[in-house]
Amino acid sequence: MKNLILLRHGQSEWNLSNRFTGWTDVELSDKGREEARRAGEIIAQSGVIPRYCFTSYLKRAIHTLDIALDAMDRSWLPVVKDWHLNERHYGALQGLNKAETAEKYGAEQVHIWRRSYDVTPPALRPDDDRYPGLDERYVGLSADELPLTESLKDTVARVLPCWEELIVPALNLYDNVIVAAHGNSLRALVMMLRKMTPEEIIAEEIPTGSPRVISLNDRLEVVGDRYLK
Amino acid sequence: MKNLILLRHGQSEWNLSNRFTGWTDVELSDKGREEARRAGEIIAQSGVIPRYCFTSYLKRAIHTLDIALDAMDRSWLPVVKDWHLNERHYGALQGLNKAETAEKYGAEQVHIWRRSYDVTPPALRPDDDRYPGLDERYVGLSADELPLTESLKDTVARVLPCWEELIVPALNLYDNVIVAAHGNSLRALVMMLRKMTPEEIIAEEIPTGSPRVISLNDRLEVVGDRYLK
Repeated sequence: MKNLILLRHGQSEWNLSNRFTGWTDVELSDKGREEARRAGEIIAQSGVIPRYCFTSYLKRAIHTLDIALDAMDRSWLPVVKDWHLNERHYGALQGLNKAETAEKYGAEQVHIWRRSYDVTPPALRPDDDRYPGLDERYVGLSADELPLTESLKDTVARVLPCWEELIVPALNLYDNVIVAAHGNSLRALVMMLRKMTPEEIIAEEIPTGSPRVISLNDRLEVVGDRYLK
Repeated sequence: MKNLILLRHGQSEWNLSNRFTGWTDVELSDKGREEARRAGEIIAQSGVIPRYCFTSYLKRAIHTLDIALDAMDRSWLPVVKDWHLNERHYGALQGLNKAETAEKYGAEQVHIWRRSYDVTPPALRPDDDRYPGLDERYVGLSADELPLTESLKDTVARVLPCWEELIVPALNLYDNVIVAAHGNSLRALVMMLRKMTPEEIIAEEIPTGSPRVISLNDRLEVVGDRYLK
């Protein structure tokens, strides 16, 4: 049996200030660091010990993994960072306060952007400072790959190549693999593995800092799904 | 021109207690973490910004790199961890207090172990708790690769495959590559690049937390060597 451990990053500084984050590279808050350490301790005690690690290009996920690995005394584990595991790109909403955005566009519209499967928030323009093509870490990406905005559906489509090309080969080599990432990139993995409908995945909330173990048989079919406590 | 940035880890908890460390996986001290952060700031200010990273399997080097990358706001950089970059293995001296060891074996003998090129300290026995073959991170290594003790010469020989197989290919792709490692594994790289004699490399002290930039031409010959300040 194989175990895929999913870990959503702890609280970030922008969770505190209630802003749309997306690909903005904000730091963990002190509470977020504490959540990460506790997650590492829970994983160590569970006996489901990872042997290979994936995370995104965003420091709130990378640092969550670093802190959790240190708490497991396994800082030596290989870690692959992949932008495909980044949070859903929130387009021109990134950086805006959620309450102010609701005032400007209406609460109903904001609810649709946040809770629908295939509706995208307003797109960034490529000359916007927030355009990922202007960020050195994404210079190797093609214009097709660089998001201006994303629906959850877009995020799901973007996460899949990472699953197929990187995570599956790691699961073929190692029994336990951890992915430290974001609410929506982890939803993409859960949706695909559990064959969920759009309605089901929208209703699926993944709590921060709570390690979730999806157990898979040799054909990588789900045979178990639980949060570690 | 290519730049190889060498960074020796900051002070560890065993530097404080004056013990032989070697492959023992001890944590950075608070001062060591501060040295790492300062090193990252110095590198960021220098303009010699790394694009690819190597470190050892030992957390004092891994955490030095993590902290320095965070100080550069480059936690997203790829990091390859390789046991070949570990500190020199100190055999049966690992864990012993240096002053007590001098009392037991004589100061002259300890000086020879520490300052000669090809003399090994007393070897571990494979049933010793400290034998790396009993540590999960080294289970993939052959008996030939697992050290019972090492001279500096042995360490130099062991570091070379990492240079040839991993660091050179990274330098072919990226202008600036950082290696965060240990006094003796970094000496191995310096000796090889600068074509030093055993006498010269023994006299070469690499200070902790001080980024050193070795500049190389396209044939990877040294054209510059300086510490960043």
